[in-house]
Amino acid sequence: MKLENSKGTKDFGPEEKILRNEVVGRLVKVFERYGYSPLETPIIERYELLSAKSGAGEESDAMKEVFTLTDQGNRKLGLKFEQTLSFARFIGMNPTLNMPFKRYEIGPVFRDGPIKLGRYRQFWQCDVDVVGCKEMSIDSEILLLALDAFKELGLDAFLEVNNRKLLKGIIEFAGIKDELADSVIISIDKLKKFGKDEVRKELEQKGIDDDKIAKLLSAFDISGSFEEKIRMLKDIIKNDIGKQGIAEIEEVFSYFSDEQKKNIIFNVALARGLGYYTGTIFEGFARKSEVTSSICGGGRYDNMITGLLENKKEFPCVGISFGLDVITDVFKAEKKDFEKKTVTKVFIVPIKTMKQCFSICKDLRDAGISADMDFMARGISKNLSYVNAMKIPYAIIVGEQELQQNKVKLRNMKTGNEEILSVNDAVERTNKND
Amino acid sequence: MKLENSKGTKDFGPEEKILRNEVVGRLVKVFERYGYSPLETPIIERYELLSAKSGAGEESDAMKEVFTLTDQGNRKLGLKFEQTLSFARFIGMNPTLNMPFKRYEIGPVFRDGPIKLGRYRQFWQCDVDVVGCKEMSIDSEILLLALDAFKELGLDAFLEVNNRKLLKGIIEFAGIKDELADSVIISIDKLKKFGKDEVRKELEQKGIDDDKIAKLLSAFDISGSFEEKIRMLKDIIKNDIGKQGIAEIEEVFSYFSDEQKKNIIFNVALARGLGYYTGTIFEGFARKSEVTSSICGGGRYDNMITGLLENKKEFPCVGISFGLDVITDVFKAEKKDFEKKTVTKVFIVPIKTMKQCFSICKDLRDAGISADMDFMARGISKNLSYVNAMKIPYAIIVGEQELQQNKVKLRNMKTGNEEILSVNDAVERTNKND
Repeated sequence: MKLENSKGTKDFGPEEKILRNEVVGRLVKVFERYGYSPLETPIIERYELLSAKSGAGEESDAMKEVFTLTDQGNRKLGLKFEQTLSFARFIGMNPTLNMPFKRYEIGPVFRDGPIKLGRYRQFWQCDVDVVGCKEMSIDSEILLLALDAFKELGLDAFLEVNNRKLLKGIIEFAGIKDELADSVIISIDKLKKFGKDEVRKELEQKGIDDDKIAKLLSAFDISGSFEEKIRMLKDIIKNDIGKQGIAEIEEVFSYFSDEQKKNIIFNVALARGLGYYTGTIFEGFARKSEVTSSICGGGRYDNMITGLLENKKEFPCVGISFGLDVITDVFKAEKKDFEKKTVTKVFIVPIKTMKQCFSICKDLRDAGISADMDFMARGISKNLSYVNAMKIPYAIIVGEQELQQNKVKLRNMKTGNEEILSVNDAVERTNKND
Repeated sequence: MKLENSKGTKDFGPEEKILRNEVVGRLVKVFERYGYSPLETPIIERYELLSAKSGAGEESDAMKEVFTLTDQGNRKLGLKFEQTLSFARFIGMNPTLNMPFKRYEIGPVFRDGPIKLGRYRQFWQCDVDVVGCKEMSIDSEILLLALDAFKELGLDAFLEVNNRKLLKGIIEFAGIKDELADSVIISIDKLKKFGKDEVRKELEQKGIDDDKIAKLLSAFDISGSFEEKIRMLKDIIKNDIGKQGIAEIEEVFSYFSDEQKKNIIFNVALARGLGYYTGTIFEGFARKSEVTSSICGGGRYDNMITGLLENKKEFPCVGISFGLDVITDVFKAEKKDFEKKTVTKVFIVPIKTMKQCFSICKDLRDAGISADMDFMARGISKNLSYVNAMKIPYAIIVGEQELQQNKVKLRNMKTGNEEILSVNDAVERTNKND
């Protein structure tokens, strides 16, 4: 048998996983500070849910890339391709939850798509969503949470914000029929990546007249400060849906300080690929990184849960999803000092003192220090080169002679400095220097 | 559409997930203290790996219950049904790793089996394994890690320990052919659950003579202290493999104090259901709990990785797997005070002071306090009943009048006590009482 990963998946060895855990830990800290509680939904969902009309939309890449499977009862199932639909199902199935309901969910999602550089078939999403609140102030809060997450991670990053109602208003302004709106939005989403010419071609293929395309694309040429952009849009967009979108954006931005607005930027060409957004939409990007894809994204989706329900009860939602893999890449590039090959801080080398070392190891661990020891009776130099290779900061060498005086040899692996100390002092010394 | 989970899966709402995170956090603390570093392998594996000969074994339940699927390239894949095979693949694919290699992996595994009470098709395993060390001292360490995990979780639990070589020795002693050994072990594994009569029947069906079955089962009647059991076994088991098993058990137990031996018990009838174990095997149980199934289990499996490799290089392994769901159940039963409906500690109620509350909320969050606020302009009583229902410990009520003096009203939801304080003092007060 050839040993290999299933196509498009990868392992995260300790060095990478320690880093991922660091990133997840910082995100969780911010999510919980903002009052979001954890939720866990299963990885396997009924296919009927994953393909729901109020979900991603048939034309989205995500929907085309669902891994499908059946269980022994021949039920059609799929692996979740995002966290949001499972969240929506959970809300729909728990109608007595107190609203607003704020939750985060962190874990893998799956897409059976083509493998490109940095795109995997299993990847982690860290989602934060709130349901039961249609006020724009909560959209503002989610954006502030994202800024705080960037800060906690030490990332130089910013957010681009737009509004689906405004996009629909622009589409109406261009004279394009409403039933084409979702499809046109999918095309607009490609503006940044592929440029105007490609998008124009795609829209032509969708049967839209050249003059309408020209009018549509002209709306994305506005520039200037937030206030200038709003003013220019108000000049051209006079339809109800567009005006509503503009009003929503203005309210979302009204809660931000000038300082915050340096990192929250209104971009009228931002569209997002998923079908279910209804209002505010946003994406985050790292500023100086080689990673050009977005590091987070989300928006308001007021109809998804309602669309899943027979009673059509209103459940306004807004949420954001952080891509763990891409954020870890940026974090790694900016924080070189976080590299660790192991969690172990102290490695004990017994020289015919195995049983006593069990007890010294226990002392270290009871003091909360990550400690390991040699179980294989290897020689000192072999052990020290292992400790070196694993980049473990300390070695404690335990010989019979020193042990008779209840002493051990502590070696600082970085400086090479060695001291003869009591076990207690060695524990204290390694515990201090964090 | 009927909203439901895919069969055999469940959601963990905030109350349950906060508890699960608490349990995972404590386990991780212990794993890392013992020098185990995190690893993440994918959920989807090639079916060829999951069904490998050196893996679970064809007769095991696990193997019969693999969820299979194909990708767009029509490759046959499966969802991992345990963490160990992926770990073995990782080791096989990374031959330059420094040995011993200690890792833990925590996450969901999948079995498409019948749904019984408390058995789900997706469940979490928390695995700790070390590769590259054939010394019995590391088996001892893994058992001590389990005891420490019980302690960290505050569980009254114990370990049962046995050895597969000893079991093979007993099977040889009974005169049963070696090629039936794996199948007989699967039957012995059912002794505790179904009793001797059922196991006798099953062994008869496997074509084993009655006198051999009687001799086999008689070996499981030994009792007394660890030393007494060993003595009795030494009296009857004279074959090489059995003697080797006894010697291994003796060495494993030689590293334990009398205190530790109260919770590490030698049980010659312990068998474990998976095919790949080669030496020490063990399972953990809660003492006073209604949960009778094991809360952890594992053992030594020296041949699995070698069996996957063309060069047949030796990779001795030993590991333990903690069942997150069952441990959380026991933890919940023993620690009633951990129930939380939300992570939020302070909820801010603006009375026409929304913008200022954004800033007070920021102060709390910057101080590391989980804070939330009302975004919906609800009245005080409606807000306080929400705070009550969510069991949030504090409310801060922010009226225009008090705010003019830079004061807010802090309400302790448990006592009903209210104080007028400066924002700073309110932050400090809620930060202190943890």
